[in-house]
Amino acid sequence: MAIKLYDLAGANPELRFSPFCWRIRMALAHKGLAVETTPWRFTDKPAIAATGQGLVPVIEDGATVVHDSWAIATYLEDTYPDRPSLFGGPGGRAMARFIGAWADSTVHLGVARCVVKDIWEVLDPKDQPYFRESREKRFGMSLEAFVANREATVKDFRASLGPLRFTLGKQPYLGGEAPNYADYIVFGAFMWARNVSDFPLLEADDPVHAWRGRLLAAFDGLAGRSLGYEV
Amino acid sequence: MAIKLYDLAGANPELRFSPFCWRIRMALAHKGLAVETTPWRFTDKPAIAATGQGLVPVIEDGATVVHDSWAIATYLEDTYPDRPSLFGGPGGRAMARFIGAWADSTVHLGVARCVVKDIWEVLDPKDQPYFRESREKRFGMSLEAFVANREATVKDFRASLGPLRFTLGKQPYLGGEAPNYADYIVFGAFMWARNVSDFPLLEADDPVHAWRGRLLAAFDGLAGRSLGYEV
Repeated sequence: MAIKLYDLAGANPELRFSPFCWRIRMALAHKGLAVETTPWRFTDKPAIAATGQGLVPVIEDGATVVHDSWAIATYLEDTYPDRPSLFGGPGGRAMARFIGAWADSTVHLGVARCVVKDIWEVLDPKDQPYFRESREKRFGMSLEAFVANREATVKDFRASLGPLRFTLGKQPYLGGEAPNYADYIVFGAFMWARNVSDFPLLEADDPVHAWRGRLLAAFDGLAGRSLGYEV
Repeated sequence: MAIKLYDLAGANPELRFSPFCWRIRMALAHKGLAVETTPWRFTDKPAIAATGQGLVPVIEDGATVVHDSWAIATYLEDTYPDRPSLFGGPGGRAMARFIGAWADSTVHLGVARCVVKDIWEVLDPKDQPYFRESREKRFGMSLEAFVANREATVKDFRASLGPLRFTLGKQPYLGGEAPNYADYIVFGAFMWARNVSDFPLLEADDPVHAWRGRLLAAFDGLAGRSLGYEV
């Protein structure tokens, strides 16, 4: 039976742009596990009330319900140990936490400064007030002001990817010769942008752009075929 | 036979402060391998000419000579596979490269902005002109100017450690329940500062400070007993 994933969607239910849900989409594909996604909106809190919190991703695997992308990834690793490993051993599992912390802070902030207004644009109208209010409170300014200097801040964002770029100069993926959950963590941030905005986050000759392209093509183009922009 | 390590030293040959050599000191201890260190100065290029380059760490393991801290760490892992693993599997080995890239850029820059003048102070006089000239060229300013605002830049440095601090809120080490090479990579930067300067890089209540303390105490206090400052 396929695993069920509650997956953040826009006004168009085919539009899936949550960076944390994309981590799990890629992780499920990596494990070769079938998935059925259910479009979910920020304000659909009752649908996931069983988790005791109000955010996706949430999975249902038979009778087991798991929320939080890290908890889901480690659940999948532990529950399906005979499938390809998401972490490549205990060291990778521990270090992926650091890579997640770097992505959640450095990468997500830089992406948000470029595309958060574009996210608001594609949301279901019932989600727009919630999103605007919660993000404007977090950022201390309007969504419009937060992205107003994106032509300049994108340069800082690209510079902030230095450790990723250096690593990709040594090996094709953060996971080594093949991608693993470390890659999906960071890649999720790029899917967040790709599926809501045509703003070019990366320059075409950036090794990070090539890495992103390889992950867009992975698993028969799972991510690359999703509704979004060609950037 | 003990492995020989060429280890950067100050005017006082007991003073060892290279962040890259400290990575290897800790890695050798982790593997339980005996080491004999040879104090080496920046200008002692002939002593390591066999490596075809001019930087330490360099190890001699019998007839095998290896330079570059990453190459040495992977050599030790591959040559002594039955000893405790430095990476915890292939995933950790791949991801440690990213953590190294983050440390070499973010962490090292922040530390240098606080202590690079202190490094110059403790060098052997024969090394001082080389060090000043090469670093002032790299930084585009005098050593004095580079550290002039350290009371302010140390706050940026502490903020830049966010991903490390977050991870240490989830697990005791970057390597998980026990330290591994990911920890030694980052810890080396703190030894670089500790052994040349009494400038307080970390606040006493910072979880990073507690982590650093655990690593100073590791391996019977290998790092904590080394000549340096109690900060």
